[in-house]
Amino acid sequence: MTLQVIKIGGNVIDDSEALSTFLKSFAAIPGYKILVHGGGKLATRMAEKLGVETQMIDGRRVTNPEMLDVAVMMYAGLLNKRIVGMLQKSGCDSAGVCGADGHCVTSVKRSPEPIDYGQVGDVIGINTRFFISLLECGVTPVVCAITADLTGQLLNTNADSVASAIAKGMSYVYETSLVYCFEKSGVMGNIDDESTMIQRLTPSLSHDLIENGTIQGGMIPKVTNAVEIITKTPVKNVIIKSSKNLATDFGTVIEND
Amino acid sequence: MTLQVIKIGGNVIDDSEALSTFLKSFAAIPGYKILVHGGGKLATRMAEKLGVETQMIDGRRVTNPEMLDVAVMMYAGLLNKRIVGMLQKSGCDSAGVCGADGHCVTSVKRSPEPIDYGQVGDVIGINTRFFISLLECGVTPVVCAITADLTGQLLNTNADSVASAIAKGMSYVYETSLVYCFEKSGVMGNIDDESTMIQRLTPSLSHDLIENGTIQGGMIPKVTNAVEIITKTPVKNVIIKSSKNLATDFGTVIEND
Repeated sequence: MTLQVIKIGGNVIDDSEALSTFLKSFAAIPGYKILVHGGGKLATRMAEKLGVETQMIDGRRVTNPEMLDVAVMMYAGLLNKRIVGMLQKSGCDSAGVCGADGHCVTSVKRSPEPIDYGQVGDVIGINTRFFISLLECGVTPVVCAITADLTGQLLNTNADSVASAIAKGMSYVYETSLVYCFEKSGVMGNIDDESTMIQRLTPSLSHDLIENGTIQGGMIPKVTNAVEIITKTPVKNVIIKSSKNLATDFGTVIEND
Repeated sequence: MTLQVIKIGGNVIDDSEALSTFLKSFAAIPGYKILVHGGGKLATRMAEKLGVETQMIDGRRVTNPEMLDVAVMMYAGLLNKRIVGMLQKSGCDSAGVCGADGHCVTSVKRSPEPIDYGQVGDVIGINTRFFISLLECGVTPVVCAITADLTGQLLNTNADSVASAIAKGMSYVYETSLVYCFEKSGVMGNIDDESTMIQRLTPSLSHDLIENGTIQGGMIPKVTNAVEIITKTPVKNVIIKSSKNLATDFGTVIEND
């Protein structure tokens, strides 16, 4: 059986039309699939309304207990269940969960040294059995990036890390692809020129193109991370593409030779 | 296998100490169990903070779209995941869901005639397979009273009805008890006198005690509803008790002769 773990972020979530189009394409994907969604601006806006202050250190948000509550309300609550409702409408039976549910994504609180980001967790493992149960019951998991540690403490977590942990863990069970949807068409030599998109990357080609400066800036960690996943786990490939192109093959496939 | 479907309402949810004590007792219950929780005052308080007006008709709340969003945030989000976290802490692996998840509790929007209560649903069925999957995976479902219709439209629903629909549906699979926790010890002749609590009621005794005025007021629909459940479905018994006494046998058991 094949499984696609597909991650979407703020650029889709904050645009209700883009989200609706994306979810229709997602619902139509055959085989097993898991959707992982980030947060977007919903929690920030709600925090403002509620007068919860957004603390920032070095450009990164600090999750204090009040902000965690807002994130749980908005991501595990409103956004997660709206996505589930929209998928049901498109005929894709789904169930919305956070990492605490069935201990499906377990994290540990990040060390307060050198910088205390507050109630933030780093993923340490997943409960494959929980995901298998849902998938084999005909239900597509929709996972938000709120996780919990082993004691049930809720923690705010990076959605890319949640998606990669799920793909890694599930790749021992199903033939698994990990798809990162973002605002660009794929990995590009020139970020502003779609015609420079690279269709296929292998570990050695990735290394060469980073070395010679073709792959630059924010694309470097994405590609390095993808190469690590395909070389160290059975994940078949990592695909970096635009959420608009979910229904097509257009995008960058990173796979072994 | 035995299953207990246990419902708690606002009196436990709004009291964090009572909730914590209750959840510890709940976690210790052997066999399969499902927790159904109502909402309490969380959504009303949040609606006030956000300036969402609470509309009332004949003393009953109207759920307009803004109020539904608040209910989803607070009940399917914050409260549901807090309960899951607390149960995980007590060693009870659980997963929080609303009725939309896996179409586990399906409802239809209530007719706007004679009174339009807005985004309110009446339960029409459950997905037993979804609950069986979770239970047999070692995970206790924690269900909030947000449901969805067949098109994925989220709807605010009465928690007692959600609990009874789950118990009825699951009673064809497991030996099922339905437990309603509320603020009193059980069904009482005199609501202010605990010593008048009735330990066991059968359909015929219930009928007689309603006829002769021993069972009065708000207890009548609770008892009538319980009698209907045990006479029309395989549900073994309905127990009405205080959430404080979950770990004990103290309460009213309504069962067939």
